[in-house]
Amino acid sequence: MRRLVNNPYDVVEEMLEGYTKAFPNHVKLLEEDGRVVVSVKAPVKDKVGIIIGGGSGHEPLFLGYVGEGFADAAVIGNINTSPSPEPCYNAVKAVDAGKGCLYMYGNYAGDVMNFDMGAEMAADDGIRVETVLITDDVYSSENISDRRGVAGDFFVFKAAAAKAAMGADLDEVKTAAIKANDNTRSMGVALSSSTLPVTGKTIFEMEDGDMEVGMGIHGEPGVKRTKLAPADEVVDEIMKYVIADLPFEAGDEVAVLVNSLGATPLMDLHICFRKAAQVLEEKGIKIYQSFIGPYATSMDMAGMSITLMKLDDELKELVDYPCDAPYCVIK
Amino acid sequence: MRRLVNNPYDVVEEMLEGYTKAFPNHVKLLEEDGRVVVSVKAPVKDKVGIIIGGGSGHEPLFLGYVGEGFADAAVIGNINTSPSPEPCYNAVKAVDAGKGCLYMYGNYAGDVMNFDMGAEMAADDGIRVETVLITDDVYSSENISDRRGVAGDFFVFKAAAAKAAMGADLDEVKTAAIKANDNTRSMGVALSSSTLPVTGKTIFEMEDGDMEVGMGIHGEPGVKRTKLAPADEVVDEIMKYVIADLPFEAGDEVAVLVNSLGATPLMDLHICFRKAAQVLEEKGIKIYQSFIGPYATSMDMAGMSITLMKLDDELKELVDYPCDAPYCVIK
Repeated sequence: MRRLVNNPYDVVEEMLEGYTKAFPNHVKLLEEDGRVVVSVKAPVKDKVGIIIGGGSGHEPLFLGYVGEGFADAAVIGNINTSPSPEPCYNAVKAVDAGKGCLYMYGNYAGDVMNFDMGAEMAADDGIRVETVLITDDVYSSENISDRRGVAGDFFVFKAAAAKAAMGADLDEVKTAAIKANDNTRSMGVALSSSTLPVTGKTIFEMEDGDMEVGMGIHGEPGVKRTKLAPADEVVDEIMKYVIADLPFEAGDEVAVLVNSLGATPLMDLHICFRKAAQVLEEKGIKIYQSFIGPYATSMDMAGMSITLMKLDDELKELVDYPCDAPYCVIK
Repeated sequence: MRRLVNNPYDVVEEMLEGYTKAFPNHVKLLEEDGRVVVSVKAPVKDKVGIIIGGGSGHEPLFLGYVGEGFADAAVIGNINTSPSPEPCYNAVKAVDAGKGCLYMYGNYAGDVMNFDMGAEMAADDGIRVETVLITDDVYSSENISDRRGVAGDFFVFKAAAAKAAMGADLDEVKTAAIKANDNTRSMGVALSSSTLPVTGKTIFEMEDGDMEVGMGIHGEPGVKRTKLAPADEVVDEIMKYVIADLPFEAGDEVAVLVNSLGATPLMDLHICFRKAAQVLEEKGIKIYQSFIGPYATSMDMAGMSITLMKLDDELKELVDYPCDAPYCVIK
């Protein structure tokens, strides 16, 4: 194992303690619930509460995107595991300012079950909670509503949080989140597994020199496992699926996210971005804004994903809207 | 190999093309020199030119820190190799606004030779260029001026760039850079080597489950190679060296950087930060500002370094000063 941890059963608690100690001007742990990271500004008067979350091991997703102009709270599960209903409920209690809250998370069965129970508990208190599931992973299902959420989480969270920060009501924020999700598509390639601290072993086996296009961020199977190809070929294949799926067309403007799954360095991401930009240019699709780096990871997994979000004037404004979270500052 | 590249001899050119395509509102490649990344705002009227640089493979160092309030240019060498004198000189020509320029880079013989030649070429044109070497790696030599520069580059660049942005003259900017370097100390631990695209192999051998405390970012030998220890023990040992070296003392205020060498995930960095914060608290040293993430890497090397910079009022102001570079935005 090449990980820096202590007792592997304490990784999430120790991570949260370190994270909130590092950024006390942005975030704190909810006193009554050690699995809820809340913005120090929350609840924000007259603003819809934005609550994101899911399993750990994808940092900076979800905890890194709590802050002004972004999420009000993140609910934190164990590694690759949904949080339980209580913290989902406690997050609502902590950030609701009377305008209701929006839950947003990647579409995984465990998360759906637990967040739904949190929403029911909030409803018993008279607090309205709506939910938008992120379903950007194009290869995970033919049926869009069955798809998993991966790095596209970032764009959908960003758009909806900006809408809330601009003073929109819960229906408007939910509509913006759905619109962002409807316009967002992702696909990734894994070159290695990630290491589970508890076992000290990788989650699945992958030979050095192999790759799997379309693999999910927990190791869900992709299109095929083959020998590692040059970056341009890998990007070409990913872009083919992503562009055809919406489809993205000539004249469209997009935000692009080239995301590291953890161990893939910025050098490689920039090389991949170069090819993605060439493909978009050939198709007559204009890049409006670019994001490169580790945005939604799988711990020390080597690999990369590409996310496109098709933009109109509203989504451009929401992407550009200022935010100040520990792992995303936009001026 | 678990890297996403094309022809391994083209990695730097392709990386630079991708990077500058991704952030056209911030940076461009100098037309007459493909190894100089310049801020689109440069030259900035009445401002000392800030030029940083060194070998590739440490991204976001150096290219990611070019932008408003930060460096005006970065000069880019091949992987782990100094840039040649011409781009060092061309960077000066591109960013000098009549107030002279400051070169800053980690203290490596090749960089010193090449940047010095660049400065001589600029002197022939009547442009004054001063140099400050970063020497933060505590274990690299007993003699501070012989030490290497590692992640502390980030703090020294940030401080000097802010001083320049505030309108200081070249002597004042140089003085601020020296002060920042004098107050900065780093040490790291490597858990793996990094992979060279040209050979497809790691730079040196390291068994899974081993670690080397004090190793340099190009694999320079450290204190000792032992079996991987729990994160708290590793941090304790690093902090012992770092704190004793300046020394940092009760009542001091510091900026802290817990840096990933590439493949080490944010989960682990937060766990390491937690322990570093505990050690500082026990010593009566106050954390003023924290930075966590991949700031100065060695491609896909697993490992982590800790940097402390002792702050006075001036350095606090310089650390906090707004900047807008692709990989560092401070509001």
